Amino acid sequence: MELETFPNPRPGRTFSITHVNPEFTSVCPKTGLPDFATITLEYVPDATCIELKSLKYYYLEFRNKGIFYEAVTNQILDDLVAACNPNWMKITAEFSARGGIHSVIEAEYVKE
Amino acid sequence: MELETFPNPRPGRTFSITHVNPEFTSVCPKTGLPDFATITLEYVPDATCIELKSLKYYYLEFRNKGIFYEAVTNQILDDLVAACNPNWMKITAEFSARGGIHSVIEAEYVKE
Amino acid sequence: MELETFPNPRPGRTFSITHVNPEFTSVCPKTGLPDFATITLEYVPDATCIELKSLKYYYLEFRNKGIFYEAVTNQILDDLVAACNPNWMKITAEFSARGGIHSVIEAEYVKE
Amino acid sequence: MELETFPNPRPGRTFSITHVNPEFTSVCPKTGLPDFATITLEYVPDATCIELKSLKYYYLEFRNKGIFYEAVTNQILDDLVAACNPNWMKITAEFSARGGIHSVIEAEYVKE
Amino acid sequence: MELETFPNPRPGRTFSITHVNPEFTSVCPKTGLPDFATITLEYVPDATCIELKSLKYYYLEFRNKGIFYEAVTNQILDDLVAACNPNWMKITAEFSARGGIHSVIEAEYVKE
Amino acid sequence: MELETFPNPRPGRTFSITHVNPEFTSVCPKTGLPDFATITLEYVPDATCIELKSLKYYYLEFRNKGIFYEAVTNQILDDLVAACNPNWMKITAEFSARGGIHSVIEAEYVKE
Amino acid sequence: MELETFPNPRPGRTFSITHVNPEFTSVCPKTGLPDFATITLEYVPDATCIELKSLKYYYLEFRNKGIFYEAVTNQILDDLVAACNPNWMKITAEFSARGGIHSVIEAEYVKE
Amino acid sequence: MELETFPNPRPGRTFSITHVNPEFTSVCPKTGLPDFATITLEYVPDATCIELKSLKYYYLEFRNKGIFYEAVTNQILDDLVAACNPNWMKITAEFSARGGIHSVIEAEYVKE
Amino acid sequence: MELETFPNPRPGRTFSITHVNPEFTSVCPKTGLPDFATITLEYVPDATCIELKSLKYYYLEFRNKGIFYEAVTNQILDDLVAACNPNWMKITAEFSARGGIHSVIEAEYVKE
Amino acid sequence: MELETFPNPRPGRTFSITHVNPEFTSVCPKTGLPDFATITLEYVPDATCIELKSLKYYYLEFRNKGIFYEAVTNQILDDLVAACNPNWMKITAEFSARGGIHSVIEAEYVKE
Repeated sequence: MELETFPNPRPGRTFSITHVNPEFTSVCPKTGLPDFATITLEYVPDATCIELKSLKYYYLEFRNKGIFYEAVTNQILDDLVAACNPNWMKITAEFSARGGIHSVIEAEYVKE
Repeated sequence: MELETFPNPRPGRTFSITHVNPEFTSVCPKTGLPDFATITLEYVPDATCIELKSLKYYYLEFRNKGIFYEAVTNQILDDLVAACNPNWMKITAEFSARGGIHSVIEAEYVKE
Repeated sequence: MELETFPNPRPGRTFSITHVNPEFTSVCPKTGLPDFATITLEYVPDATCIELKSLKYYYLEFRNKGIFYEAVTNQILDDLVAACNPNWMKITAEFSARGGIHSVIEAEYVKE
Repeated sequence: MELETFPNPRPGRTFSITHVNPEFTSVCPKTGLPDFATITLEYVPDATCIELKSLKYYYLEFRNKGIFYEAVTNQILDDLVAACNPNWMKITAEFSARGGIHSVIEAEYVKE
Repeated sequence: MELETFPNPRPGRTFSITHVNPEFTSVCPKTGLPDFATITLEYVPDATCIELKSLKYYYLEFRNKGIFYEAVTNQILDDLVAACNPNWMKITAEFSARGGIHSVIEAEYVKE
Repeated sequence: MELETFPNPRPGRTFSITHVNPEFTSVCPKTGLPDFATITLEYVPDATCIELKSLKYYYLEFRNKGIFYEAVTNQILDDLVAACNPNWMKITAEFSARGGIHSVIEAEYVKE
Repeated sequence: MELETFPNPRPGRTFSITHVNPEFTSVCPKTGLPDFATITLEYVPDATCIELKSLKYYYLEFRNKGIFYEAVTNQILDDLVAACNPNWMKITAEFSARGGIHSVIEAEYVKE
Repeated sequence: MELETFPNPRPGRTFSITHVNPEFTSVCPKTGLPDFATITLEYVPDATCIELKSLKYYYLEFRNKGIFYEAVTNQILDDLVAACNPNWMKITAEFSARGGIHSVIEAEYVKE
Repeated sequence: MELETFPNPRPGRTFSITHVNPEFTSVCPKTGLPDFATITLEYVPDATCIELKSLKYYYLEFRNKGIFYEAVTNQILDDLVAACNPNWMKITAEFSARGGIHSVIEAEYVKE
Repeated sequence: MELETFPNPRPGRTFSITHVNPEFTSVCPKTGLPDFATITLEYVPDATCIELKSLKYYYLEFRNKGIFYEAVTNQILDDLVAACNPNWMKITAEFSARGGIHSVIEAEYVKE
């Protein structure tokens, strides 16, 4: 599904937008077992903002996809940067414990 | 309703004022369903402070108004800056979850 | 009542003292209704420290006094600075909700 | 057991990885009694990332080993730096109370 | 009782050690009533570290000693600095409420 | 809007259903100001269950309706009992503070 | 001030009403110092309910009144039973710590 | 996948077993969107106990299955009762919010 | 010190009084090390109530006394029953962890 | 190691003793991986009480022993009943999550 955007309603001001999704799930490519995460998207928009409903459907596409922690976090960042060309963006992915260890991956983009 | 102000009781000092309103509600222009948010106003006054009761009535005017997250946060900041001409002001709007995703918008003003 | 002080027991060192009073109450000059606040005093003493029992009695003098949020916070800071001449001092006053909105006032003093 | 690594999936970007293990246990060399800790590993990978399952087995090797708080924290940092040659790494070890006192050791590595 | 130390197991690295004691008690010199505090010791060792059991016995010596908040915090810092000659040390003493007010004293040492 | 129901999927068993709505709002008939509540519906179905989406729209009808705490709680109970004829039902309405006092109304229905 | 009541809106049903006031304060008759409490009123109305605003003003009358914990709790119960003649009523008064000890008094009335 | 069981290790004693799964997910048959729940299984075994790994795989079979809240809770209870023939069993399913409302379904079985 | 009492202010009603002391400390007779506990006293008075300040001084007498968990809890119950002859009384003593294990002793008295 | 006991200090009274051990660990016989649990022991003593230090050493014997959840909980109950012949005893074992599912086993003994 396509990520949709809408024009920034206040283009002359630096402000930040955060969307927290505690219901992200994908599949571990090694074991075939599901992974669960809270994905936090934070960004400072440039000309466009990400439309919330299309963001939700974008996340749903990972439900049955096999992908590792480090890879999925970076891919989400790349996809969302490509979609809205922000001034700044950060993805924080907090995964549920596996084997007693829980993990957090953080990746950040700054427009040059 | 008019936002009222009163003279800063200690104009020679930089100090900050925070008003937290956990009972903000407006309407989504797309679905017609209500949105709920906690609006946190922080500012450093210049010559005038915002009167608390008129602030409350100002927020109530959004109850049946259709407006998006990003727009309402920036409009509140613009209105309150216009009302009291502060040295610094910040609005943080924390919205309840919609479609499993909850959102926070932060916008800031600095007097030049 | 007079605010009492005692000599700084370790004048050669920069250290900080915090006293948190969750039982502060004054009266709203507009409605005559009581206000409740937690007052946090933080300071770096110079030659003298504030005596705790006299601080408690100082706060009690506001119990039936009509005074606004912004004014009371700045007055407490002025009174305590005058009493002990500190290197740095900060007052944080967190007021209970009125009309659904709760408020925090922060004021700071730095010796020049 | 050998610590395994895999290639960094996004080598051109500075991003961080955190693995929290609340089930670490070793043995006090003085008393022979078990110690319990939460070990938090944070790092910014260079060319390789630490494989999660081998990390778990690495931690299990301390289960019956006699080693002091300060020593074990530094050894884990040295072993993990050696395994994946990161740009930055930090170990935080939060130990359960012994004799009513609980302890935290933090050690950090920065690649020069 | 003597504060004991042991050699820093990793002298070539800057790392920090924290010991939290929620069971500190001394006596108010004015009222003769007991005071209760959580004492947090944080330091960056130089050549030696403080031995945990002797630290516990050191704290126990204050149990029936009359001493004020500000004085005891600074004395602990002085004693522990003298014992292990650290690169940096901080004592945070959080006292239970007296007369409805609870207090925190923080004192810091930096080796020059 | 009509409250919709669907057939109990397991009519031979006594089981309970709870729906918690933290976003209920109505209007105080005296002051015209909004009230906010969390409404918890608990019931043991007989032949039919309440459909969740129609329940949501039912609650939305109170948004601009003037009604007191005690009345609204009992009316919701009456309406929902009429809609699905349950074996047992309970409404708990927890209202936000007004004038510093927050209120809870609980009403229960048992089929005879 | 008079405690006001209004007719029970649903006289044929047993239901309960709770009003929680975290801002109660009175004065200790022995020391002259203020006491602070959260007063929880729970009752099952008979023919009348207690009006919330008059309840608030009733509590305010204790602000400068000297009265002990056990006495004030029982007096509130007696006054409120006299005002609305309920089927059942309970007062729970949770007092802030004095001398390090905090206290709770609970008193209950059942109509015979 | 088959639910596996093992013999009760202490058949002469009434004792209870609880397994909490915070990572249950199924699909809403109406919208096709995922539902998320914490499923708590409590039971008193008779001759056999449910094997934990096969329970995990049993829950995973619902990942892409369309089924309503009330139906899935009762089906899990029926399946697990059939698998181990317990003396008593209860399923509690706590679902994440949908449309601002979160739901809990509880179903219980008692051997006659 | 003597435990003081005062006449029950409402002798015709069954009501309960709770005093929570989080600052109890005694000494372990075996190790000589201090024990720390929160002592909760709950009772239903008959003709007399326990005076709060004398209760505080009663607890202070244990500060340097060697006594085991089970013994101290029962002794406090015996002493307080003897002092005020209540209709019902319960002591709950929650001790801080020793050797990683924390303990709670509960003892109850019912007048026959 | 032998579980030690000491004579009940108040044999004429029914009272309860609770010891909570958050640092229990054993080994899964199937995978060889460690299990972690909080073991809560509650009992009403008859003639003897369990000595705390020997209880700690008793628990330590499970550190490298392979045993299932259900079996270990019942064995601890059997061993402790045998050691002190109580009037009532209950063991609650709360295990850390394995495969995303955490488990609680409760077993109880009543003297006939």
